[in-house]
Parts: sequence; structure tokens; C-alpha cells
Amino acid sequence: MLDFMNIAVEEARKGALLGHGGPFGACVVKDGKLISVAHNNVLKTNDPTLHAEMLAISEAARKLGRFDLSDCELYTSCEPCPMCLGAIYWARISKVYYAADRDDAAKAGFDDKKFYEDMGRGKCPEGVQMVQVDKKKALAAFQAWLEKPDRTVY
Amino acid sequence: MLDFMNIAVEEARKGALLGHGGPFGACVVKDGKLISVAHNNVLKTNDPTLHAEMLAISEAARKLGRFDLSDCELYTSCEPCPMCLGAIYWARISKVYYAADRDDAAKAGFDDKKFYEDMGRGKCPEGVQMVQVDKKKALAAFQAWLEKPDRTVY
Repeated sequence: MLDFMNIAVEEARKGALLGHGGPFGACVVKDGKLISVAHNNVLKTNDPTLHAEMLAISEAARKLGRFDLSDCELYTSCEPCPMCLGAIYWARISKVYYAADRDDAAKAGFDDKKFYEDMGRGKCPEGVQMVQVDKKKALAAFQAWLEKPDRTVY
Repeated sequence: MLDFMNIAVEEARKGALLGHGGPFGACVVKDGKLISVAHNNVLKTNDPTLHAEMLAISEAARKLGRFDLSDCELYTSCEPCPMCLGAIYWARISKVYYAADRDDAAKAGFDDKKFYEDMGRGKCPEGVQMVQVDKKKALAAFQAWLEKPDRTVY
């Protein structure tokens, strides 16, 4: 079997050396076959959402033509941040292998651990405010969704 | 001032009726001006990462040419899920206005609340396993990053 973690880590190294983003790489695997591989692209694109895991999941889902990746596994060079873990949950990925963890990421200057702590306390990081407004207005859009006879649940 | 929440909710309704995804819309605003607006595209693209907030943040960052959106606000028709909240943290967005919340989303059939609960307990949803392997291998990639003299911190 291919050493998928090695592929993820080498991709991390490659992306960082190219200056595309931080040293993070990931790949999606199905039935022992590589479906997608990606590295962090935050710096190259200026898009803060383009972590390695997000890109690998997006590409795998598009290739397989479905948003449910429950028959897939993800290999990532570092423990997924809350954003990427959320994507893993939505994609229903069944197994995640990670190498470095949030403590290692913190030592390398990344905020994953801090964000987990903030989120776990149900508190935003300093400088972020969350305000609820106009709840009733949004409920009408939900009602329209629930009344749509051909809606797909995901 | 424009009613930005109204823009987000109308976008939610539009996207759902078009069958592009669930009833979720969002927009990014800077200095009272609309920078980006998006609706959920999960069903249209089969990409589970394309929530409204992710798309609005991506587009705003690319338009402004920077990953730091700390001078921006986000309006979203529903409380962000953990994935989107992670993206908000990484983008350093300073203020988030949301209308419906995770309880309303649960009533409409979405798993946001469950994912928050799982993540808060530091536990994966049923059917998801997380396994740490090969930590040392990944640390070498981090070390290469820390030794890169021209690295950009984000």
C-alpha cells in the first residue's frame, strides 16, 4: 500500500517551499487509491479558507461527483483545525490520519489550538463579535426550504 | 445604509429555490459597502465545503487581495457552523451578524448543532475516527517552514 502519510507530508513541504502557504498537506484515499492531494494555498491565493484539507476534500468530492465521502479516508500532515474538522464532519469522512498536532502547529506560529479553545468555551477569539438579529426574517427562508418538495438532505 | 441582513436572507432563499443548496446566504461588508454575497452551493457542485459564508469570505479576500479581513463584517442568514466559524476566525473578521441559529438549523434538518456539541466534547461524531501517526515525519516539514527566512505569518 502507498504511504499516504508520506504523500501528505511531502506535499506540505513542497507547498511551503513554493511559498503557497503554511507547511500543511493532505490527501483523500478511497479503497486504497489516491483520489486527491493538496497543500495549503492561503498565501498564493490570499484566500484564508484554502487549507490543505479543504482543497483535498473539495477535489475528491468533485471527482467522485458526491458530497458524501463516508467511504473515504483523509491523511493530513497536521491535526485539522476547527474549520477543516467541520468540513470533515460535513463530508462524513470516516477516518482521519494526522501526524503533527495542534501543539506542534502552535509552536510553528499557527492559531489552531487557540481557536479550538475559544470554540470549546463557546467564546469568540478577542476582537470577534457575534450578534443575532432578524431571526424571524431568516425563518421564512427555512420554511420555504422545508416546503420544497424536491429538496435534497445533506 | 443597505439592509445587509436582508441581502443575506434573500440570497439564502434564492439559492434554495434554485436547488443550489440549503437555505443559507451570506455577505461580507467593509465600510458600509457590499464586497461579496453568496449562497450555499453544496448541491450544485457536490462540494460539501461550499457553505454561503465560505464562498462570501473567499470572494471578499480575493477581491481585496488579502487574507486578513479584520476590517470587514459578515452578515449570514444563519449562525455559522463550526467550519464557517473556523473560516471567520482565520479571516479575522471582526463582527458577525446572524439571523437564524443552530437550533433553527436543526429543525430544518441540518447538523450544525450536533457538530458543535461533538467538537465541544472533543469527540468526533459517530462513524468518524481520528488517529495520530508519523508525528516525527511531519515535524520535519514544520522545521523547514520555521527555517524559511521569507515566510509570511498568517
